[in-house]
Amino acid sequence: MGETSMTQAIMSREHPAEPPDNTGGPDLERIAASAAAVDGGLLSMTDFRHWFDERRKAIRMDVRRIPFAELQRWSFQPVTGNLVHDSGRFFAVEGLRARYDGPNPASWSQPIMNQPEVGFLGILVKEFDGVLHCLMQAKAEPGNAEGLQLSPTVQATRSNYTGVHEGSAVRYLEYFTDPGKGRALTDVLLSEHGDWFYRKRNRNMVVEAVGDVPEHEDYCWLTLGQVRRLLGIPDLVNMDTRTVLACLPVGPAGGPSDGAATALTASLSAQAPAAHTLPELLRWFNAIRARSEVTVEPVPLAALDDWVRDADEIRHTSGRHFAIVAVSVEAGNREVTGWTQPLLSPRGTGVVAFLAKRINGVLHVLAHAHPEPGYVDIVELGPTVQCVPDNHAHLPPERQPRFLDEVLAARPEQILYDAVQSEEGGRFYRALSRYMVVETDEDRAVPEDYRWMTVAQLVTLLQHSNYCNIQARSLIACLQSVW
Amino acid sequence: MGETSMTQAIMSREHPAEPPDNTGGPDLERIAASAAAVDGGLLSMTDFRHWFDERRKAIRMDVRRIPFAELQRWSFQPVTGNLVHDSGRFFAVEGLRARYDGPNPASWSQPIMNQPEVGFLGILVKEFDGVLHCLMQAKAEPGNAEGLQLSPTVQATRSNYTGVHEGSAVRYLEYFTDPGKGRALTDVLLSEHGDWFYRKRNRNMVVEAVGDVPEHEDYCWLTLGQVRRLLGIPDLVNMDTRTVLACLPVGPAGGPSDGAATALTASLSAQAPAAHTLPELLRWFNAIRARSEVTVEPVPLAALDDWVRDADEIRHTSGRHFAIVAVSVEAGNREVTGWTQPLLSPRGTGVVAFLAKRINGVLHVLAHAHPEPGYVDIVELGPTVQCVPDNHAHLPPERQPRFLDEVLAARPEQILYDAVQSEEGGRFYRALSRYMVVETDEDRAVPEDYRWMTVAQLVTLLQHSNYCNIQARSLIACLQSVW
Repeated sequence: MGETSMTQAIMSREHPAEPPDNTGGPDLERIAASAAAVDGGLLSMTDFRHWFDERRKAIRMDVRRIPFAELQRWSFQPVTGNLVHDSGRFFAVEGLRARYDGPNPASWSQPIMNQPEVGFLGILVKEFDGVLHCLMQAKAEPGNAEGLQLSPTVQATRSNYTGVHEGSAVRYLEYFTDPGKGRALTDVLLSEHGDWFYRKRNRNMVVEAVGDVPEHEDYCWLTLGQVRRLLGIPDLVNMDTRTVLACLPVGPAGGPSDGAATALTASLSAQAPAAHTLPELLRWFNAIRARSEVTVEPVPLAALDDWVRDADEIRHTSGRHFAIVAVSVEAGNREVTGWTQPLLSPRGTGVVAFLAKRINGVLHVLAHAHPEPGYVDIVELGPTVQCVPDNHAHLPPERQPRFLDEVLAARPEQILYDAVQSEEGGRFYRALSRYMVVETDEDRAVPEDYRWMTVAQLVTLLQHSNYCNIQARSLIACLQSVW
Repeated sequence: MGETSMTQAIMSREHPAEPPDNTGGPDLERIAASAAAVDGGLLSMTDFRHWFDERRKAIRMDVRRIPFAELQRWSFQPVTGNLVHDSGRFFAVEGLRARYDGPNPASWSQPIMNQPEVGFLGILVKEFDGVLHCLMQAKAEPGNAEGLQLSPTVQATRSNYTGVHEGSAVRYLEYFTDPGKGRALTDVLLSEHGDWFYRKRNRNMVVEAVGDVPEHEDYCWLTLGQVRRLLGIPDLVNMDTRTVLACLPVGPAGGPSDGAATALTASLSAQAPAAHTLPELLRWFNAIRARSEVTVEPVPLAALDDWVRDADEIRHTSGRHFAIVAVSVEAGNREVTGWTQPLLSPRGTGVVAFLAKRINGVLHVLAHAHPEPGYVDIVELGPTVQCVPDNHAHLPPERQPRFLDEVLAARPEQILYDAVQSEEGGRFYRALSRYMVVETDEDRAVPEDYRWMTVAQLVTLLQHSNYCNIQARSLIACLQSVW
């Protein structure tokens, strides 16, 4: 079906939005119905693939690495050596010194991306044939390994939407900024990578449109079930989509009935028996926050120990961790058609994994409360494993990241989810991680900073700021794709 | 009844705790039952008054203002002029410079109390005769206007409980630190005064004891309904008790049936129709956070513009705002029996008030989202009015705090709550405010940074950090006392 006729068909079948409610009850049911709809959407999965292949041909983005000297409008400040845009906006690469006191002392310094603005990550939804659909965007970013990804309706920094970059307006932004144009189903201010960003946060929003939504060839309507199904494909659904999907409150789930799927479905229910009550989990989490003595201070990028800058990159003298690099971008369909910018380039592919375990028939995942220097509030919950193994390859076995060996040694029947996904391509250069959920039935002592939690408990917490990190949220979205 | 026989009677009648649950359902019912119990507790209200009068005679605390030169173990640092304890712990009085950009620009500098530790405010609860009772403490603090107040079971800074002050152990602390001794009903890390403290937060906890609880003459068991009833008495229930009480999730309420009380009871229900859905309120709140450009930086106390230090106080040259003063304390029953310390002394009595309005039969209060320089996360929700009128007396009518005149001009039949309460007497010297809830039926345009919310919506939010300020939480506790 062509874009125009498809959209016209949509408009004639639309249903009015439900009236507002206080408790989210009817919304939960509608979200669950959309999550269950994979075949009954406006587009079949085959239609989607055709559309996405078309977009891949139409959307051109040429990216090449350049030396810092070829950056335009970006420069190293004279004294600090900080890498900044001449508008003073977007983001800056600065230095940071961190010290953890307490049980696991550590201190180091590193470059960090400072972007003290709150942006939007927003998915617009609308009912067609009584089923909520998500308006998804085919979008290229300079750091993407494979070019095009499936992105939210809107991803916009404040510099984007206030016009600092002198480009065209951000499409569909008004649905997220103007309450008269849409009703919020969720709006949460959530952190991004605390190891790479200094206090960066975005509003993760799902808004139900009021009235007609104009069509555009780079966007298509998919059910929640279809988007989740696409999370099984490596590096297709971008990070911004994953974190927004994770915020959707979990409704009553149908679904298949084999052992792991039943345990997962149970894990999505707030009524399922959990290993720990939510107040007890918060007590554990607050105790860790209270005793974490984390000191973070901005320092000049030029003053960092163990980091060196040459013509092409800023890197750690060990060759580990990450590098700051520069790229030149030529794009056909962006607000701005050509630009240069710095990106953060991790060394090696990461591993981001939850260990999962059935407790009383309910799937629990093993969350890890840990500090990252860029968090606004010291400590967040992350996955069981979150590391780049190459950064630890030089260390003896007893100093390897906890649970990493167990996750990598999983037998096929233990693996509930396993796909390579990428981090945000607007800031990170080919930042790929293997996202995994690995089931275990081993009884073990859990280290003090880990706890077994149901998915519903994590989703309850991530309706609010400063609880769940971006990696855990991505995995929660992925985990919901597997039934 | 004497203390010993009372406690023995208690122990023989105790009931086992409910089994843990995931949703809080049974806890909600038990909390509601305790809130409804005013006459059926272990102590009658008359018994309580006798006990409290006895404690007032037994607990002696002599406080006198002293010049800074008589402070022991506290001194002004040579270069910065910051006022610090020689252990480096407790708190310090430092300087802070703040700048608000955006719609309401402002910039100023001021002294601020820096206490970068997380302490405990905890109420221990236990069932007697099937009704939850709260273990309340009769406690004096140096800044209290009237000496003794009704305090939580535990209020302890980290300096207290790690023994920096070389005093005796904090009584009952183990119930809050050791999960084996009690089960958490709530545990939230919550802010305190953002105008006076730099990022101070305490864990607000309610823990249900496992097993026997030893008695002590300075503590008594009251039902939640009894403690709430005591909130009608001026300056009796201290700030720490109020903020912990506000965190208790709201259960199904019974209660009287006249108009305002019915509307209030409805306001406590998560199912009541609200003027705005919770996601829409969060959207409004996040939009304000996202556009607030607040810059806060620590500066030396000696470098502040417009603040002067003499032998007895640090004060603003205008005589407004507050002063930093010093006191000498002699106490009979404290961990330490004599000490000196600085306190912050506000100028004049504050007004802390919610305007309230019935919307579709449900009482709504008018919350105000605003920044304070000491908040961890920029903006929190406060009451409709929060000011010290004397600080604004020199300004023309159009620059008076919004809604202040309306609140002060309320007719008796509009007033749902009106009592003078105090802020924390361990840090503030006679900091009194008139706490009010004033009902209005006027239709009006609501300024952009205000929203009508149900009490249940506020209580839902304050289960998490960084939403509701200490003044709003105090008022929520007070408001729940009036039926």
